[in-house]
Amino acid sequence: MTRLQDLLQTDDFIRRHIGPSAEEQAEMLATLGVSSLDELTETTLPDSIKFGDSLQVGEPVPEAQALADLKAVATKNQVLRSYIGQGYYGTHVPGVILRNMLENPGWYTAYTPYQAEISQGRLEMLLNFQQTVQDLTGMPISNASLLDEATAAAEAMTLAKRAGKSSGNTIFVADSVHAQTLSVIRTRAEYFGYEVAVGDTDAELPEGTFAAVYQYPCTYGHLHDLGAVAERVHGAGAQLIVATDLLASALVRPAGELGADIVVGSAQRFGVPMGFGGPHAAFLACREGLQRSMPGRVIGVSKDVKGKTALRMAMQTREQHIRREKATSNICTAQALLANMAAAYAVYHGAEGIRTIAERVHLLTGMLHRALSDAGLKPNDTFFDTLTFEADVDAVRRRAEELGMNFAYRDGRVSISLDETVTPQDLSDIVQAATGQAADVQALEAGAKDGIPAGLKRQSDFLTHPVFSSHRSEHGMLRYLKALENRDYSLVHGMIPLGSCTMKLNATTEMIPVTWPEFGNMHPFAPAEQTEGYREMLTELERWLADITGYDAVSLQPNSGAQGEYAGLLTIRKYQEAQGEGHRNVCLIPASAHGTNPASAAMMGMQVVVVKTDDKGNIDLDDLKAQAEKHSENLSALMITYPSTHGVYEENVVEVCDLIHQHGGQVYLDGANMNAQVGIAKPGLIGSDVSHLNLHKTFAIPHGGGGPGMGPIGVKAHLAPYLPGHDVAPTGDSQTGAVSAAPYGSASILPISYLYIRLLGSRGLRESTQVALLNANYIAGRLEGAYPVLYTGKGGRVAHECIIDIRPLKAETGVTEEDIAKRLMDYGFHAPTMSFPVPGTLMIEPTESEPKAELDRFVDAMLHIRREIQDIQDGTISHGDSPLHHAPHTQSDLMADEWNRAYSRETAAFPTGHQRTQKFWPAVNRVDNVYGDRNFICSCPPIEDYVGA
Amino acid sequence: MTRLQDLLQTDDFIRRHIGPSAEEQAEMLATLGVSSLDELTETTLPDSIKFGDSLQVGEPVPEAQALADLKAVATKNQVLRSYIGQGYYGTHVPGVILRNMLENPGWYTAYTPYQAEISQGRLEMLLNFQQTVQDLTGMPISNASLLDEATAAAEAMTLAKRAGKSSGNTIFVADSVHAQTLSVIRTRAEYFGYEVAVGDTDAELPEGTFAAVYQYPCTYGHLHDLGAVAERVHGAGAQLIVATDLLASALVRPAGELGADIVVGSAQRFGVPMGFGGPHAAFLACREGLQRSMPGRVIGVSKDVKGKTALRMAMQTREQHIRREKATSNICTAQALLANMAAAYAVYHGAEGIRTIAERVHLLTGMLHRALSDAGLKPNDTFFDTLTFEADVDAVRRRAEELGMNFAYRDGRVSISLDETVTPQDLSDIVQAATGQAADVQALEAGAKDGIPAGLKRQSDFLTHPVFSSHRSEHGMLRYLKALENRDYSLVHGMIPLGSCTMKLNATTEMIPVTWPEFGNMHPFAPAEQTEGYREMLTELERWLADITGYDAVSLQPNSGAQGEYAGLLTIRKYQEAQGEGHRNVCLIPASAHGTNPASAAMMGMQVVVVKTDDKGNIDLDDLKAQAEKHSENLSALMITYPSTHGVYEENVVEVCDLIHQHGGQVYLDGANMNAQVGIAKPGLIGSDVSHLNLHKTFAIPHGGGGPGMGPIGVKAHLAPYLPGHDVAPTGDSQTGAVSAAPYGSASILPISYLYIRLLGSRGLRESTQVALLNANYIAGRLEGAYPVLYTGKGGRVAHECIIDIRPLKAETGVTEEDIAKRLMDYGFHAPTMSFPVPGTLMIEPTESEPKAELDRFVDAMLHIRREIQDIQDGTISHGDSPLHHAPHTQSDLMADEWNRAYSRETAAFPTGHQRTQKFWPAVNRVDNVYGDRNFICSCPPIEDYVGA
Repeated sequence: MTRLQDLLQTDDFIRRHIGPSAEEQAEMLATLGVSSLDELTETTLPDSIKFGDSLQVGEPVPEAQALADLKAVATKNQVLRSYIGQGYYGTHVPGVILRNMLENPGWYTAYTPYQAEISQGRLEMLLNFQQTVQDLTGMPISNASLLDEATAAAEAMTLAKRAGKSSGNTIFVADSVHAQTLSVIRTRAEYFGYEVAVGDTDAELPEGTFAAVYQYPCTYGHLHDLGAVAERVHGAGAQLIVATDLLASALVRPAGELGADIVVGSAQRFGVPMGFGGPHAAFLACREGLQRSMPGRVIGVSKDVKGKTALRMAMQTREQHIRREKATSNICTAQALLANMAAAYAVYHGAEGIRTIAERVHLLTGMLHRALSDAGLKPNDTFFDTLTFEADVDAVRRRAEELGMNFAYRDGRVSISLDETVTPQDLSDIVQAATGQAADVQALEAGAKDGIPAGLKRQSDFLTHPVFSSHRSEHGMLRYLKALENRDYSLVHGMIPLGSCTMKLNATTEMIPVTWPEFGNMHPFAPAEQTEGYREMLTELERWLADITGYDAVSLQPNSGAQGEYAGLLTIRKYQEAQGEGHRNVCLIPASAHGTNPASAAMMGMQVVVVKTDDKGNIDLDDLKAQAEKHSENLSALMITYPSTHGVYEENVVEVCDLIHQHGGQVYLDGANMNAQVGIAKPGLIGSDVSHLNLHKTFAIPHGGGGPGMGPIGVKAHLAPYLPGHDVAPTGDSQTGAVSAAPYGSASILPISYLYIRLLGSRGLRESTQVALLNANYIAGRLEGAYPVLYTGKGGRVAHECIIDIRPLKAETGVTEEDIAKRLMDYGFHAPTMSFPVPGTLMIEPTESEPKAELDRFVDAMLHIRREIQDIQDGTISHGDSPLHHAPHTQSDLMADEWNRAYSRETAAFPTGHQRTQKFWPAVNRVDNVYGDRNFICSCPPIEDYVGA
Repeated sequence: MTRLQDLLQTDDFIRRHIGPSAEEQAEMLATLGVSSLDELTETTLPDSIKFGDSLQVGEPVPEAQALADLKAVATKNQVLRSYIGQGYYGTHVPGVILRNMLENPGWYTAYTPYQAEISQGRLEMLLNFQQTVQDLTGMPISNASLLDEATAAAEAMTLAKRAGKSSGNTIFVADSVHAQTLSVIRTRAEYFGYEVAVGDTDAELPEGTFAAVYQYPCTYGHLHDLGAVAERVHGAGAQLIVATDLLASALVRPAGELGADIVVGSAQRFGVPMGFGGPHAAFLACREGLQRSMPGRVIGVSKDVKGKTALRMAMQTREQHIRREKATSNICTAQALLANMAAAYAVYHGAEGIRTIAERVHLLTGMLHRALSDAGLKPNDTFFDTLTFEADVDAVRRRAEELGMNFAYRDGRVSISLDETVTPQDLSDIVQAATGQAADVQALEAGAKDGIPAGLKRQSDFLTHPVFSSHRSEHGMLRYLKALENRDYSLVHGMIPLGSCTMKLNATTEMIPVTWPEFGNMHPFAPAEQTEGYREMLTELERWLADITGYDAVSLQPNSGAQGEYAGLLTIRKYQEAQGEGHRNVCLIPASAHGTNPASAAMMGMQVVVVKTDDKGNIDLDDLKAQAEKHSENLSALMITYPSTHGVYEENVVEVCDLIHQHGGQVYLDGANMNAQVGIAKPGLIGSDVSHLNLHKTFAIPHGGGGPGMGPIGVKAHLAPYLPGHDVAPTGDSQTGAVSAAPYGSASILPISYLYIRLLGSRGLRESTQVALLNANYIAGRLEGAYPVLYTGKGGRVAHECIIDIRPLKAETGVTEEDIAKRLMDYGFHAPTMSFPVPGTLMIEPTESEPKAELDRFVDAMLHIRREIQDIQDGTISHGDSPLHHAPHTQSDLMADEWNRAYSRETAAFPTGHQRTQKFWPAVNRVDNVYGDRNFICSCPPIEDYVGA
């Protein structure tokens, strides 16, 4: 390397991303008795899986150059005004929300709010989301949130099946549902064994229909009389599922008032950019009686141990809570950040603003209706924002594109969907493009058609809770957003050492392109020639991910890890069917697997067979052999996680893969722990056939407080032709159905992973993995004397995370892993993963991004807590009197005049020096889960409950 | 208005900007006994000044449209790579600083840190700035910060004059100083009566030289031997002023080691975009002995009442602390936000990073030197980053612009300055443009010249304090920035009701364009044809400001309000000289004026004559008449503030203006209180001739924690030809000298004011002023029973602010205005202005942006405090025992095991309900100003001092 090369700082991002400095790494390596990262890798990884070569993703690129290069790529996108509709609409992100939420690490680096006491801010905003959905749809219960409208509809289908009473096996889908929704329902229905019947809105339901799905307003714009539909559906003993639009619901009678059992939709147009398909928050609302079967997360109102109102996740479908083999849903990731944005949009505009926007959109549509009618065209007569008509499609399209606009073109018809961004000037252009004639806006207004039939006009109020009228000025809104942000612990405060969740740095440079208009304002169904920039980036990302995983092809469609699992198994089954082996339906899964694994297999109609694990957490090879042998005829797949969910590299993984292949099965390697493989091992080389990647774990997409995620899958060549396809915007030749609404899932966050790879390069990716191992082993080493490390592999080493066993201490003292988790809050930490995969343990994953000082601060806190436990062991204090039992401590605890605890205020809240300069305060005391479970409340509580309690 | 127009939400920004809703306004108006905003205006404003018409700045424009339109304007700028140098260099703003500081309201909405207890975060970062400057320049003392390098040099001149012992009257300026620096020195020197001698670096000093200014490295790139210079200068009994470059100082012996008495410069290239001239932080560092005379703010290390290390402004040149008539400086605004950014850049890169960047820049320059020499050109042989050579300027320029680059072209010579953004590819292009020949980068590296003479190589360490090596990873840096942010109270927490400082909403939409590259990456001396976008925006802004003020011409050059005053008086004097009335040198100033007024007059060589004010705070018309009469021959100007600094509209202002004009004088109307005039009165119509506008008060530029500011001036037509000019980048035909380094001051923040006006439109601007009156009168009305309102005008009304009198309570109870200010922190507020303009008072300005709920929360806190004072009056508690005396209360106060106060912990920290959900904690107890005054420490304290104290 020449002096100039040395000075170019091409490696600068590597040292920004990786926490410990070179000197600190050396010091830490010494504690492990090795002299280099390579030696650590060498002595930790089984020989059989080592990848000795270099990745082929290029040299690291400095941040400024990487951004400039990506900007040049982005500029190849042609961003036209989009009137395509079909579930994606132009919207204005209010500046105060854009800057202080979407672009603010205080919001986007938070984790899923399992630790409710330090998550009250976003729990409140998510509750606002539920309230918004409930109010606008007219339903009593809503979740927060699902991946997209299409998968929400598919979830509604299975909810209807499991909660409804019908023994039928047919799902009816109206032919005026968005095409991508129908496609995902079809894909999902197939392996549940449901028949999908498609017919027009007025069609009678086939015998044995357990649920029927309608779009309201429909994909072409019509407003069908849902009341009549509801009668018919209920008359047939089926559940009525309605996919609806939140903005339309401000003016039209909401689905909930017309008899819907389940209402789904997307909150995208509430201030979330289209982003070439996502991420956006979808919702699922339901009638009373279905809530306990609801998929996704529901935020509930409960109390803390002192009786103060406290929010929590009332239903948390986390990997470890999934119904495993009996599952009909594997949903896990939500779209929390986007749900928060949509809720903030509702708070910002309030009922008045939302109504005004809806009225404007509808008036402009009515004016367009007039212009089209005047030109002799025949658009639909009932509508909210979308008009469909037969026309000379080629001529219209040519004029539209010349004027810089896209309409939707389907079956010789043109559809035009308006949205809040449409100005009178835009309307003129639209009229010009649609009719070839100039518009007289004033005359059109006078002659505007009202598209909402009298019986379908909304009469009821909505967004009446004070939160929707208390923050109307920008100062008010800014302070509300900041107040909520500051209640929540996020990566801006310190580490979040969650095992398996890989809370690494989400670098600013990676985040910046997400809000570039070139990426944000693209409709997922825009003509391919307008999306060149996106396609170039996505192709490169696919190539890189294929290289990193050792696979031959990658699909970027799955929107979450669990959806990746589902897509992977789908690909396997489609492949096997093509080989005439469609009968193969047994899926072997080790007992230690993530809960989503069996759930995904169940959704693919597979029979889940559990394989034992030994007392070290490794797959019991004998049992595996026996099961493989036993099910050889029908063996479809084995699902394994590597390194294992126990945080170790199993030695025999190659042997395991071989065994499965011998029995004609495919190996699905869950990529949740890919952060321990990148650059030092490759699933495709180990012997597996398909993996998903959690881009929101390994590839730096932030957790967003519980979403978005991205779960692309990589596959070997033989599986490539069977990857998920897309009807509306095809991504290749595959005949397999879609698993997501959009062809590339949440495309607008893919620049994050793209830049992550480009900034680190082959070298930096490998070093990141190595330091992830170093940090985990350093923590394990420092904690070991105080807390036993449960599982280790070769050389007594853990991989990228370690499990410490609390059970012996618990047995002796009564101190639970939850006590430790809550007590860590007092020290200024988010707890590690509790009781997964082993009850009574904590699983700690520091990631490579944590500086040594932060690791030490964490270990010191854990050791300090260990001494507090020792006091109980020594009889100095009882468990019930200890700070562990009372943790976390709040300001109001300590402000009280009376203090009758067995320890000091100081011990309670300032146990070590650090908190003196940087105290993070839990907003409430320990949340009462039992109360919350008994009292299911998922609407905003009266405002008084928040204050002074 | 048609229904469509009604639905277009064109007024939406007005209701976002203005705090109280229409309903709340009605309610508040009722408490004042008026029925409309117009009636309030009508009954508050003197008839003689009312502006009954509408402004001509257009209709309000929705946020999205305003941004889109401005983007289209910005795109007209052609942003070429800039190698122009001359004090402005390309730089990379680290993403984590860009997003979390420059684009983060938690940093940019803070006020100047007068209330140290709730400002420790940015005080720490400003201390880092001082440490950075001290370390790099080799000087023991630095301030934080000045407006730009040129004015810093002018400040250094006057510092040298007043602190040095020379009776001489000549300032020597080397001819290799940046041209804009020389220009500003000339302007400034003229009215102090200093001779400016210009000569080459080696020239002997003229007799009577009190100071000499050199650029190091010089504007053409040379590194002169400063040691020899220092000997010569000191031998002549003069002070050595060196303008230097922070990045060069990493490699060259710093000016401080070579004998400089004062070192100035710009910190722009430390991660602050060029922005067409600003804003950037300039610095002024000095040797021991000069510190007590230093201009600008110095952050000092002191202690709080409990002995804990606490930072504060050791020297605060605020309007009320200015030396008034004896002043040689009127500096008031600093560039705090930009100084914070530069300091963060130093923390982010540390010594190692800064050195690497400097070495790279120098190596690339050495390679360029080789290429130029090989091509037969003759660049300077000593250099850090800049090479100057004779060449076919036209040919070079043509090639450079074709390749998308700008060089500097001066007197038939080309200068090329490299910076941290230059890549090897850029170097190739530069060589191609400069020589017409292709570059062989490898060969150039082998033959690169070292431009730093052996004797000028830096040997000493710098940035050795731990803060510059503790936050090297992005996670570390992010957490450091967030920890500091969260220590500081800003507008994101609540109102900052500072009288005269107008802390209104800084809307996100206004802030967004500031960081657009089209605005950020423009060099102020870029060829005019490349800056069309900027010029279009600036011309429009000038037109609008002229309309709003009723003037005929506007200069956007002054960088702060005080500089605006200076520029205004300069314009008056130049005009009077042109009329043959150069002898007029008396400036009348009312006793109640801002301290900057007399200071500015003194700097213009004027004799300040104070005019009495009556007991209502109004100008004593009789005294004014008498003084005008007495000084009629020599009367140059009257400076008045309107509404007065006492917060009332004086009735006789028109009469006052007439009187001055009768005596041949000009009227300078200080625009500090322009927020009470916009749209309802116009200075130009009232009768004044010139005003400055504080764009950072009235026109929504955020205060940035103590800067940036902008102080453009408006003038009547007769003064227009005498507005400040600019030698390097002329803005018109004026022969008047420059007052700022850059032709349009801090151009890159002008989009904020531009958008502020465009978003509100004529209607919104007027309504904003009216609601500012409403909010102030509402507060005055609610407080009046508890605290006397000192001054009122017509109808018993105040203007946009009110002064409440604490003196009677103080006399009775000992409670001071400071006690109340500190106690307000416990309630979650920043104090109003203390003891200005009247000692023992508080001046409250709520602005139009505060919601009614926030006004009420503030009034409730003040009334609650009043009851705490009543307890002292009633003898229930003594002043010394009261929470007022002990305020503010910190976490560590309340955590203590022992509590022996006469009031509860609850009373201390949670006096009303609000703090239970949203407590803002002061970081330290009341700061000990006496200790700080006795112990002048302006470097970073040892790290232990921060922790656990």
